[in-house]
Formats: sequence, C-alpha cells, structure tokens
Amino acid sequence: MGFSEAEVIAELAGIFSRDDSRVIVGIGDDAAVVTSSLHQRVITTDMAVENVHFRREWSSPYDIGSKITAANLADIFAMGATPRHLVAAVSLTGNESMNWIRELAQGMKAEADKCDVSIIGGDIVRGPVVTISMTAFGEVATPILRSGGQVGDGIYLSALPGFSAAGLFLLSNEINISALVHAALAEKALAQFRSPNVDYAAGGAFSQAHSLCDVSDGLLTQGNQIAHASGVRLEIDSTLISALAEYHALLDLAEEVGAYVWDWIACGGEDHVFLATGRELSGLKIGTVVEGLDCEILGLAKPPKGFTHFL
Amino acid sequence: MGFSEAEVIAELAGIFSRDDSRVIVGIGDDAAVVTSSLHQRVITTDMAVENVHFRREWSSPYDIGSKITAANLADIFAMGATPRHLVAAVSLTGNESMNWIRELAQGMKAEADKCDVSIIGGDIVRGPVVTISMTAFGEVATPILRSGGQVGDGIYLSALPGFSAAGLFLLSNEINISALVHAALAEKALAQFRSPNVDYAAGGAFSQAHSLCDVSDGLLTQGNQIAHASGVRLEIDSTLISALAEYHALLDLAEEVGAYVWDWIACGGEDHVFLATGRELSGLKIGTVVEGLDCEILGLAKPPKGFTHFL
Repeated sequence: MGFSEAEVIAELAGIFSRDDSRVIVGIGDDAAVVTSSLHQRVITTDMAVENVHFRREWSSPYDIGSKITAANLADIFAMGATPRHLVAAVSLTGNESMNWIRELAQGMKAEADKCDVSIIGGDIVRGPVVTISMTAFGEVATPILRSGGQVGDGIYLSALPGFSAAGLFLLSNEINISALVHAALAEKALAQFRSPNVDYAAGGAFSQAHSLCDVSDGLLTQGNQIAHASGVRLEIDSTLISALAEYHALLDLAEEVGAYVWDWIACGGEDHVFLATGRELSGLKIGTVVEGLDCEILGLAKPPKGFTHFL
Repeated sequence: MGFSEAEVIAELAGIFSRDDSRVIVGIGDDAAVVTSSLHQRVITTDMAVENVHFRREWSSPYDIGSKITAANLADIFAMGATPRHLVAAVSLTGNESMNWIRELAQGMKAEADKCDVSIIGGDIVRGPVVTISMTAFGEVATPILRSGGQVGDGIYLSALPGFSAAGLFLLSNEINISALVHAALAEKALAQFRSPNVDYAAGGAFSQAHSLCDVSDGLLTQGNQIAHASGVRLEIDSTLISALAEYHALLDLAEEVGAYVWDWIACGGEDHVFLATGRELSGLKIGTVVEGLDCEILGLAKPPKGFTHFL
C-alpha cells in the first residue's frame, strides 16, 4: 500500500463532497452535524461482507458500493420515509488500490445522488476481508410499519422480485451467458444482482399503504414478517404473478438454465422491490390479506426452496 | 450453531429493550423511528475488527461490546453534544455461542446505559471474523469543532491518556503481571485497555471550550488535527504533564517493563480522554496555543514512537 489512512479519507471526502444545505459539519471532525427538522427520524443500518454478500470476482467496486447503498436507502423508503444522510464504515485488507477504493466510493455516491442524499461521515479500518457497514437516516411525518396490515387489504409489489436471485444463480453455477438463447435476460439478471436498479419512487408511491417493507430477504420471508407483525395472513395468488410479463421473462430464463422460477421469485432477495398491503394502491396486485398468521403463495406445483445468508 | 438469525435478533432485542420515550419504533421493522428535536443532529460511526482492534483471547465479549460503544459515545461528547441513540451491525463467524453473543450485547447495553442511550437497531451477518460497526446519534445546540482553537488558548486534558496503551503493551509483550512490583498499576492498565473507563461528564465539562476532540488515536495525532483544523500550533509542556500523579504511576509501570512512558502518553489512543483548547477550562492544563501549524510536546529527551492501526 502506497498510501495512508489520511490520504484515503481525503480522497473519499473529495468524492462524497456535494452541495447540501442540511450538512453543517461533514467529514473530518469527531462526528458529522446536520440540521434539525420537526419530522420523526428514521435510522437503519446494513453490513455487507466480502465472500458472503459480494465477491470481488463477480462485482466491480462501483457495483459493490452502489448495492450496499441501495439496501440502506430502500430500508428508509420501506418506512414510508425520505432518506437524508448516510455514513459508511469500511474495512480494507490492504491489497486494494486507491483506484479500487475510489470506485467503491463513487458507486456509493452515485446511488446516494439518486435520492439527493449526502454521505457525511465514516470510518476506515483494516480487516481480513472488505466489510462495508452503512447507516442511513431519514425523516417521516408518520412511518408505515410492518404491523399495519388489515384483513381485506390487497397485497402489492412495486415490481416482481427474482432477477437478482437469477443473477446469483447464473454466477454460482458458472453458466456461460453468451451461449444462452436468453442471453439478454441473463445480462439483465446479472446487472440486477451486481447493483439492483431500485425504483425508489415506487416506495414513495405506497404512501397510502397500511403496511410496507422492502423485499431484501425474499417475498415469503418479508410476507411472513408483515403477517406476524400485523396478526394477519397474506394469501398470494400465483396466477396474479404468472400473468405478469416479467414473470414470463424470468420463467424463460429459469427453464433454459434448469432452475425453478418460484425459488427466485419467492425466496430471492436484494432486488429491493417494495411489498405493501392496503386498499387500491398502485403497483402489482398479487393477493389479499385474510385472517390467519402466515404468508403463502397459493397454486404452486411445488414449494419454493429458501435461501439464507446466516449461520 | 444451534440457533437462527431470528433467535439472535430476538435475544438482542430483549437485552437492548429499555424504557425510552424518544424511541417510537425499535428493533424489528425495516428501520427504527425516533422523536424529533429542535437541536442539530450529530452522527458518528466506528468499526472494530477482530485481531485488529480486539482479540478474543485478550478481552471478554462484554469488554469488546462496551469498548466499541464507548468509542462511539465519546465521539458524540467530543462535539460538545449529548448522545441519544445507537445502532450496531455485527458480523459473526458462526462459532460464537449464544452466551458469547449475549455478553457482547450486554457490554454494549451497559456502556450505553451510562449515557442514558438506547440501542435501537442493527444488522447481524456472517463473516470470517467478528466485526462490529456502531453508529451513534446525538444532539447539540452549538457543536464544538476541532477548528475553533485560538492563539492564547490553554490546552487541557480531561485525564492523562496512556493506560490503555500500557495495557496493550503488557498483552503484546506477554508480560507476567503477577510477577511485577507494580502489579496493581498493570491491572489498571489492562482494564483500561479492555474496556476504557470513559469520564463522559468530563466531555460535558468542556462546554465552554473553543475546540474539542477525544483522544482515540493518540495525543499527538489529535493535537495535530486541532492544530491543522484551527490553523494554530499546540505547544504541550512536558513538565506540566510530568507534575501529575497519574504520570508517575505510568512512569513506574513503564520503567519496570522497559517501555518509554511518552510512547504511551503521546501516541496511545483508546483511553478516550478529551482534549480541549480554551480559556480557564477545568481539567488538566498541559500547554498553550500559539501561532504555527502543528503540535509538539516540548522538553522530551527523545521523540515518542507513533502507532497506527491502518494500512
């Protein structure tokens, strides 16, 4: 390594610098200082670990930076809130070039810019792998919780999840994309896995939802979280999903590579689509909230196989 | 591992639970929600990595948890601010017992309790080593920055740093504590290294300071940060420090184990004492702010050797 911690911080401070009247003190003191507001404050944190959540041979540093940033921003929108600030703590192994670090930061910055959010502080340390921990702050007048679902609500998605899981499948199974008939769909899946194209506006469009979350661990997992928090049952109708054009794109790809498409749709996370319940919301209607205490996708030939990162 | 992510989160939510009227939504949704206030908001983040910042064979999980929490809280006080909330992201290797995880959380909780602060959210993931990233939020009417130092100010410490560095020296050099004449001082140093006893009230006592920071990387490093941010020179008088009772305790220990006491005092971090400049402050006066652009300790027989965790 030909550079010091101070040089890295100076580089990052330059990349993250932007005109933001809400930031009183940015990078460079013991802490950052931002303006107040009368709204409630929303706070979330996410950690991504090399070889668990991302691989350097699969994703560029730019993609890695934008993906972890998207995960944090989506969590703020998933509360019905608006993000305002981000901080990032990163462990580096010491074998990253300054260019690698710069691209990581530029990926974070580009994703934050989409939401008019500044990265105002952080920490850089040494570790055996690259680990990135981000914390996002937002504001909201009235948060939309997972616990607000009501019997009689419709169940809505902002978009169909599954492309990110499809991308992970293609990489994990070392599938030769260029040889596929559905190479373009495969490329879309890879891009969505590497750096999800999150429709943040769709999160905002669910402002009248009774319950809301983002799908980061899978539709069934998040559906069950709403069900348990709200004391209801989420009945998802597979025929409503299989009527969607995106479903057929995923199905074509799944069939060509020998995957079960519902594994991707029901258990794939990290697309960061938004899942809501409510009355006559915009978005894709996929089912109904009824009495009970779980989440099920009705009409599947076989149950989807889950996937968990943990323990 | 005989337990799931959900079980760990439930365990932690139980440990971190406390009566706090400022917390509207705690652990369990996409994000936490807290009340607003009219004060400016202060935000800081710190990451600690196993075998870099702590070792399991040197520190209990309780100590590891309290130490990283103290580092974050001290950064908030170092802005002249009052801490309000914490979030914690932790990577676990999978070979930790639930008891180990519980003690880590209890250490965080105990340190947070000292400052009437709640841990309101977090993330738990898998990684090759234990990595802990915390983010602290505080409030302040007017922050005290590193850039406020003025020529003519006195330089003040809330306490003498060096005991934490002494503890690290004892552990790194595998010194047999029980055989020492100064075993009690050695025990104090070990305790301060494992979990610093931070005098948070001392941070608050510097409310009239012109510039303020906490000494986490060493007195010379932080002194230079104030000097560069303020455009001044910090002249620290070694005779003012060597007149202190704590200096003689450190000197006795250093001489017995063959260390240079000024390496510990000038370059040891992680005691999280507070360094301030201003007029007639309380605390230990150690020097004077003059014209120039650096920080020096005058009157030393030889220069102290620095220490850095990074790259």
